[in-house]
Parts: sequence; structure tokens; C-alpha cells
Amino acid sequence: MAEYYAGVDLGGTKILTGIGDASGRIIARSRSRTEVERGERAIVKNIIRSIHRALEKAELEIESLNCLGIGSPGPLNITEGIVYETSNLPFRRFPIVAMLEEEIALPVLLENDANAAALAEKMFGAGQQVEEMIYITISTGIGGGIINQGRIFHGCCDGAGEIGHMIVNPGGPTCGFKQHRGCLEAMASGTAIIREARKALQQQEVDGFLGFEGSAEELTGFQLARAARQGDQAAQEIYEEMGFYLGIGVANLIDLLNPELIVFGGGVMKARDLFWEIMEHSVADHAIPAVREDCRLVEAELGEDVGLAGALAVAISRGGKDAGKED
Amino acid sequence: MAEYYAGVDLGGTKILTGIGDASGRIIARSRSRTEVERGERAIVKNIIRSIHRALEKAELEIESLNCLGIGSPGPLNITEGIVYETSNLPFRRFPIVAMLEEEIALPVLLENDANAAALAEKMFGAGQQVEEMIYITISTGIGGGIINQGRIFHGCCDGAGEIGHMIVNPGGPTCGFKQHRGCLEAMASGTAIIREARKALQQQEVDGFLGFEGSAEELTGFQLARAARQGDQAAQEIYEEMGFYLGIGVANLIDLLNPELIVFGGGVMKARDLFWEIMEHSVADHAIPAVREDCRLVEAELGEDVGLAGALAVAISRGGKDAGKED
Repeated sequence: MAEYYAGVDLGGTKILTGIGDASGRIIARSRSRTEVERGERAIVKNIIRSIHRALEKAELEIESLNCLGIGSPGPLNITEGIVYETSNLPFRRFPIVAMLEEEIALPVLLENDANAAALAEKMFGAGQQVEEMIYITISTGIGGGIINQGRIFHGCCDGAGEIGHMIVNPGGPTCGFKQHRGCLEAMASGTAIIREARKALQQQEVDGFLGFEGSAEELTGFQLARAARQGDQAAQEIYEEMGFYLGIGVANLIDLLNPELIVFGGGVMKARDLFWEIMEHSVADHAIPAVREDCRLVEAELGEDVGLAGALAVAISRGGKDAGKED
Repeated sequence: MAEYYAGVDLGGTKILTGIGDASGRIIARSRSRTEVERGERAIVKNIIRSIHRALEKAELEIESLNCLGIGSPGPLNITEGIVYETSNLPFRRFPIVAMLEEEIALPVLLENDANAAALAEKMFGAGQQVEEMIYITISTGIGGGIINQGRIFHGCCDGAGEIGHMIVNPGGPTCGFKQHRGCLEAMASGTAIIREARKALQQQEVDGFLGFEGSAEELTGFQLARAARQGDQAAQEIYEEMGFYLGIGVANLIDLLNPELIVFGGGVMKARDLFWEIMEHSVADHAIPAVREDCRLVEAELGEDVGLAGALAVAISRGGKDAGKED
């Protein structure tokens, strides 16, 4: 009986593969290099190999699998199963679903990785009781996904949920994405925090940060957060500014989408103590009070497993051997 | 046979009532004063009377009606049929649906007026071919509605679609809504345009606008637009700034919701020639190019009938005598 699911979290450098049951519990996993430089066929072979390795660990045959979910960086087309060119996966039109289905006797379901993570938090994490939810991940960049009536909000062409590129400070600094000045990612990501701290060092606005004597290039987020916690005012102000702009983005999401829950994940949440309160004040200042009241702001629950859990959530929610590809 | 529908566009000063068929064609209409000062019962009686008057004009009996749709300013609860306190309707909890259903033998369906207008443009206007659409109305304020998979996006508690309160210029001027600094309504509504023009006069940044010699208080949008069209640079710049911020709001909607179409209505669209091009440049500068490409920006088609058409659209889409209240 096909009671298990395979999930693949496809990244630019590594492939994380997991076998899970219908409750999202991961019973075996495998990890391999993506090897983007070797081309599409190599990636497909690496994915197939990693699935077989995970199956071996789980002591299962492929017949035990219902389907395979893939979480991939976007832009992509989930209906056609194509990944377009991204900064991490340098292909113009990678027909990943068709190529995988040629190699493995399983239905393959593709989803944007941030959307998949949002679905995982809804199905297995912080959002299990809600139908209207937004997931925000704050790490090097800022991504997210919108859950509406319990399902991923895709928009017309699978492009919805680009929370990180919402403009919250017109004329502000640019993010990595060409000329996007003052978007949420440029104001509140891990990259933005470090950029501001390095700028302060380079422009000699500060001599250094408490407990850190190195050069601007050597500074890490961990060191900056430690300095802020030890009372370094300049370091604290960088997190406060980040929290202020994050709060504007969150307020905009609340006013537009009236969610019941917003779930915050990503590595920068480790510094949550340094920006959360300021963010909440900013949300209160910028959102419609009655709509704000409907919404809880909470931490993600799935931690580093969220990518893999997302790929499994896509597989579990969208079908299997006996289902169509659309739910 | 109940083949017609009644729609009521409930405003703070007037009630517009129409009888329409399933295609949204309005075959009779009636107009009366809301008389908010006389209380909830008086409003309900005024609505009932206006429906009977419209029925007389259409030479129809109440048995010809399938159901009654009400478009009302929010916040409201469509499931419970309650309008909460608004600036236009000063009630704490007006159970309008229950009170109307006591007085008239029809199912009554309540909807936020801007959402209803969005649905009307989707069903009968500019959005007939699309499933993923956003409607923006720019007049004294800025409102809107989100259409997802052909239906109104409500969020968890019927509060979604508050496009006008999205922050696009933190620290900017406030809108009418308490302390919302730099929201779209504060930057790009008709009120915002006039505020900037009057400020320029009062602070003597300009001596006057071409063809206008009166005091700041006397200036109207019509006069400002005329001055801009005649080549008045200061007037043109006010519309250009408005277009710039409107473009940021539109870009944010595109990146978040990946719509196929955004429909622009409201009185300020009469000055479309003065801000549209700047707005499009601003959208191009602030949205993700691939997601921007999916979306067309067009003018609304229903004009001043959009409120009434919205109430009818709600009635037609959500049910009738034989249907549940939820579709």
C-alpha cells in the first residue's frame, strides 16, 4: 500500500530528501550535492539517487510511495512543472517534473519552496488550527507564502507571495534583486542587518561593536546580536530599525489579507529578542486596529526541517498515484 | 419565477436601490436618503420602501426577486450580517441582515461595498475573462477588493482588501484614519492631491495655479487638473507624486498577489492622463519584472453604477431563495 510520501527540498548547493508519512513525520532522510554545474540531467539523477538512498534507510520499496513533492526556488510554473531561471538554479526552462517522471514511477508535484514551507507550517506546524495564514521567513533574504482557505494562494501564474519585495521604504537601499529600493528584504533581512552594521563601521559612525574588534568584512550576525544583547546601543539600533520596517510589511499584509495568523521563521528569528517588540509597536502604528486584532504573530515551529516538511506537505496535500495533480 | 435580483448600495447619505437580471443588467432603480440620524429601524424602513418603489418601476412583484444583496461600508461581518461602526454609519453593531429579513420575504446577503464593486467589475465589467483580479477605487479615499479564483478574498474575518491603508511612505502625511502615516490613501487619493495643492498655496510655494485665483480652501480637484493640463508645472508635479506612490502600492499588490488584472475606478480616474504614465513607470521600478508581466492595468468599466452593480453581483453570485448563504 502506498502510504508514504517522498519530499525533495531542492537548493542551489544541496538536495535534501525525506520519506514521510501522511502526518508529515519524517522517517528517513538523505542529503546530496545538487551539482548545478553539471546540468539538468545530473540534477535529476542526483534527486533520484537520493530518493533511493532514503528509501533504503527507511527499509521501504518505491511501491510504498504515493508521490513525490519538490520544493524549489521560483519563479516556476507548477502546472507545467517547469523551473525558470533563478539566481540559485541557472536554467532558462528546466522541465523538472517531466524529467523526473521519466526516471521514476511516481507522480511528481512541484511547488515554490517558500509556499511549500508555508503549507508545512499550516499542516504540521504553528498554523494547524487556521485557514488564513501568512508565513514569513527571514534569513539572508525574506520570502513567504500566503495560505487562503487552507491552501496556497498562487495568483494567476504561481508568482504570488513575494513578500520580501514589498516596498516599505521608497528610495531606501537596494536588495540583491536589481533595483528594488527599500523593499522588505533590503530593510529587514539578515543581509540588510549586516549591511547596516558594516556601513556604520566603514563610515566610522562607530569605532566597533561591543566584543568585536575585527574589520567590517569579518562581522557576522551572531557577533552583532551578541553586542546588542551586551548593551551596545549602535547594534541595538540596527535591530530596532529592522523591526520597524518589518512591522510596516507585516501591517500591510494584515490590512490587505486579514490573516488569522502570521508565522515567522528563518535564521534571523534567533535574534528575535532584539526586534520583536519594536516590530509589534510598528505593526500597531501602521495597521488598522480592528484588522490587527484578528491576527496573532507567532514563531514558526518546524525549524530547519521546514523545507523538507514543505516538500512533503505538497505531496500529501496535492495528490498521489490515484489523484489528479490539482486538488 | 424568481429570475430577478435586488441590490442596495448603502451609503452614509443615500440609498441606491436597483432591480437587475442575472446578467447584471439594471432594469429599474430608486434612490432615497439614508437618514442615519433617525437610527437603525428608519434605515431598514427606507431600504424596504426603496425596494418596493424600484419593483413598481420595473412592474414586478416581490415574488420575482431571488434575493437581496447589500453593499455597505465596512467593517462588517458577512456571515452574521452585521455592520460595525464606521465613519459613515455610526452604529456599534447594526444587525442589518436580520432586521431586513424580518421585514421582507427575501434572503439578504451582505458584503463590503468595495469588495462588491470588485466582484461587479469581475462579473460584468473589465474583469470578465479573469479569475485573479484586484479592483482599486481612487476617490476621496482609496478602497479596493481582491478577487481570487473568481471570488472575493475575505481573509479570516471579512477584513481583507484594505488597499488604501497599505503604507507606501513611512513617516508621510496621515490619512483621515487616525495615525496612518504615509498610507496609499494619504499619498494618492483625491483628498491627498488637494491637500498637497492647498499646502503649496498656503505655504506660498506657488502664487496660484494656472487659471485659478481663489484661496486655498476654494481649490477643487477639477481646477487643479485643468491647471495641470494647461501646463502648470506645480500642479503637474502634484499628480506625478501621486502617480509615483500609487505605483508603489500597485507594485506591492502585484508582488504579493500575482494578479492577471488590476482595475482602476473612482472619480480621480478622470485625471488619469495626469498620473497614469508616471504610475506605470513606478510600477516598473518597484515590481518584480516577471510578475509585473503577468498583469494588465486597465480602467474600470462600470462607472458610477459600480456600487449598485456590486450589490447585484453579491446577490447573483451568492445565492437566492433555494441556496445557502455561502457559495
